[in-house]
Amino acid sequence: MNVLVVNAGSSSLKYQLLDTDTREVFAKGNCERIGSDMGIFGHSENGGAKQTEEVPFPDHRSAIARVLEELEKTDFTIDGIGHRIVQGGWHFDDSAVVDDEVMAEILEVAPLAPLHNYGEAAAIEYCREKYPELPNVAVFDTSFHMTMPEVAYTYALPKDVCDKYHVRKYGAHGTSHRYEWMMAKEILGSRCHRLLSCHLGNGASLAAIEDGVCRDTTMGLTPLDGLMMGTRCGSIDPATVCYLQREGGYSYQEVDDMMNKQSGLLAISGISNDARDIRTRASEGDERCLLAFDMFAYKAMQQAGSMIASMAGVDTITFTAGIGENDWSIRKAFCDCFEWLGVRIDNNKNREAVGNGPQVISAAGSAVTVMVIPTDEEYMIAHDVERLTKNN
Amino acid sequence: MNVLVVNAGSSSLKYQLLDTDTREVFAKGNCERIGSDMGIFGHSENGGAKQTEEVPFPDHRSAIARVLEELEKTDFTIDGIGHRIVQGGWHFDDSAVVDDEVMAEILEVAPLAPLHNYGEAAAIEYCREKYPELPNVAVFDTSFHMTMPEVAYTYALPKDVCDKYHVRKYGAHGTSHRYEWMMAKEILGSRCHRLLSCHLGNGASLAAIEDGVCRDTTMGLTPLDGLMMGTRCGSIDPATVCYLQREGGYSYQEVDDMMNKQSGLLAISGISNDARDIRTRASEGDERCLLAFDMFAYKAMQQAGSMIASMAGVDTITFTAGIGENDWSIRKAFCDCFEWLGVRIDNNKNREAVGNGPQVISAAGSAVTVMVIPTDEEYMIAHDVERLTKNN
Repeated sequence: MNVLVVNAGSSSLKYQLLDTDTREVFAKGNCERIGSDMGIFGHSENGGAKQTEEVPFPDHRSAIARVLEELEKTDFTIDGIGHRIVQGGWHFDDSAVVDDEVMAEILEVAPLAPLHNYGEAAAIEYCREKYPELPNVAVFDTSFHMTMPEVAYTYALPKDVCDKYHVRKYGAHGTSHRYEWMMAKEILGSRCHRLLSCHLGNGASLAAIEDGVCRDTTMGLTPLDGLMMGTRCGSIDPATVCYLQREGGYSYQEVDDMMNKQSGLLAISGISNDARDIRTRASEGDERCLLAFDMFAYKAMQQAGSMIASMAGVDTITFTAGIGENDWSIRKAFCDCFEWLGVRIDNNKNREAVGNGPQVISAAGSAVTVMVIPTDEEYMIAHDVERLTKNN
Repeated sequence: MNVLVVNAGSSSLKYQLLDTDTREVFAKGNCERIGSDMGIFGHSENGGAKQTEEVPFPDHRSAIARVLEELEKTDFTIDGIGHRIVQGGWHFDDSAVVDDEVMAEILEVAPLAPLHNYGEAAAIEYCREKYPELPNVAVFDTSFHMTMPEVAYTYALPKDVCDKYHVRKYGAHGTSHRYEWMMAKEILGSRCHRLLSCHLGNGASLAAIEDGVCRDTTMGLTPLDGLMMGTRCGSIDPATVCYLQREGGYSYQEVDDMMNKQSGLLAISGISNDARDIRTRASEGDERCLLAFDMFAYKAMQQAGSMIASMAGVDTITFTAGIGENDWSIRKAFCDCFEWLGVRIDNNKNREAVGNGPQVISAAGSAVTVMVIPTDEEYMIAHDVERLTKNN
């Protein structure tokens, strides 16, 4: 099945057209700076070089329109469209074939992720209008986590407030964590029961997955919570938000922006949110960059302790996303912290596991199998489109 | 040495006059409803019945004045005064004999704990005026945690903001956690290296203590963070504060009040912040009360996973404070979650360990020694007064 996967961010839209059987990617590209005066459109076919041009994208509708226009110039067929949706809220515990009701529900939960859901909904709406005959499937970043037990997802805030405003832990990166489980299980079979899935990118989260079921995850009501990230602070005392408003005179919007966009690796390193830049400077002895990595690894390790406790143990750890796939020294720092649980990595395998597909990096005799499994959310989304539409 | 221990809360003031050698308490009592139209003064001597009377306490000065007036009617001598201070901020990594500089520093850090430090400072000031010849010692709830490594106490927020407003993890309950370490070490000797100290009361926190040094703790900038408590929500996505301001129209003061005073066990149970009340209703099958306990145990267990990870293991667990000392089923639920780490409790010992001094409740052969050690912050404060003044 040829599936177009659409991943709309707050000011960008990425897409891939791929074959769910062969995983071959026929075309892919991105629209950047949606909502700005001038945007950039990039497109490539059959693994060729990316062609870019300046195009104004006033909104997400104009971006997806440009993508479909470009694809119509090709001979590729589209059998279905999969859309990544950041927030499924309380409505979705699985991906869903889009109809009017699903559209209404995506918009209903949008206040939980206002920078994302509205643009994503606009892209879906355009696809439905343009190709009424094609199935659209919404794949939610949150749905995988809806199996969490009540003790894990409930916030100890007044019940009427939580009910009225739907405040609870939703998590994110669910599509990636689900892919990690699927691949680990496929590779390890019956040896894989309790998986700690570490999605470490510019956004970062952990998930505790027991026999395919999510038991807990580090992101919360929003993708701010949990690990320290590229520009996000992760878990801090929530009273800090009130303290900064009281003592610093900030508005809540300013604190929200600070916590989401000016914190994390960027704030600690003082130079960049990109782990590669920080790695370079750290290797030159820059103290703030060294601290940034130490903090990143410490907070990940510590929250991994929580995730492991919520599964009462761990037999498999997977690393994925930008840092997880490419930074062997973060993986080593993290795993060395769990020597007391019998985790042993093979230093050579760990150093060499860069961009070469799923690989085991634990040493023979390690009590826990440690793997690098490059995530593929686009494939997972396409896979869901096929799963949910092939009987229709 | 006869030490008067003064523990001033936001609207209360408790005191004990005790002998640091024998631990005998000569007199104790409390002033309640400070700042209200009419307060209550309670006082007892030599373990006798508490006498109470209505007294207006317009402020903390009037409360401590009434206490000293009452003690002057007795034959007891006072050799020094110890004051519990909630927040020592960035100034104090140990208790301190009060002089003008210490007073200034207590007031300087007061914005971090405005409901506490100002009243506590007022009580000290009165004592210094009334008895200029007596030493006053300030004992900070935070100082024990100042040994935490930078990776543990640093928040990944912009450095200029953290520097200017002194934003970092300070923790609390330090005096209690220090007492737990002291007693566990005294009882277990060389078997005790990595202690998970569980202070579970109306306020609740965990500390990871390695050879007497605090490695990490669950409370943060303020005592809101970490575990779910009587009326406090503990760790939640900090963006929740912004979300409730944006979507609910709350002010930050309202959210702060909600998180600190209307959340936790009170919010989930719907009936009380008192674990005893909730236990009664839970035993009758009340679902919200059962959930309150399950959540309390789950969140404690999960954060214990973090604390244990930060020590790379654990050999001793201690329970203290209202719930920790008195609720055997919370202790059991918590410990059963760590069976995978070899924790085994003796169910009989656990059920019987109520108010009988320090007791081991783990089973023979448990990989971790589990104890109930009733905390005694007043003794610890008196002990510090003696330690810091006996050479003078």
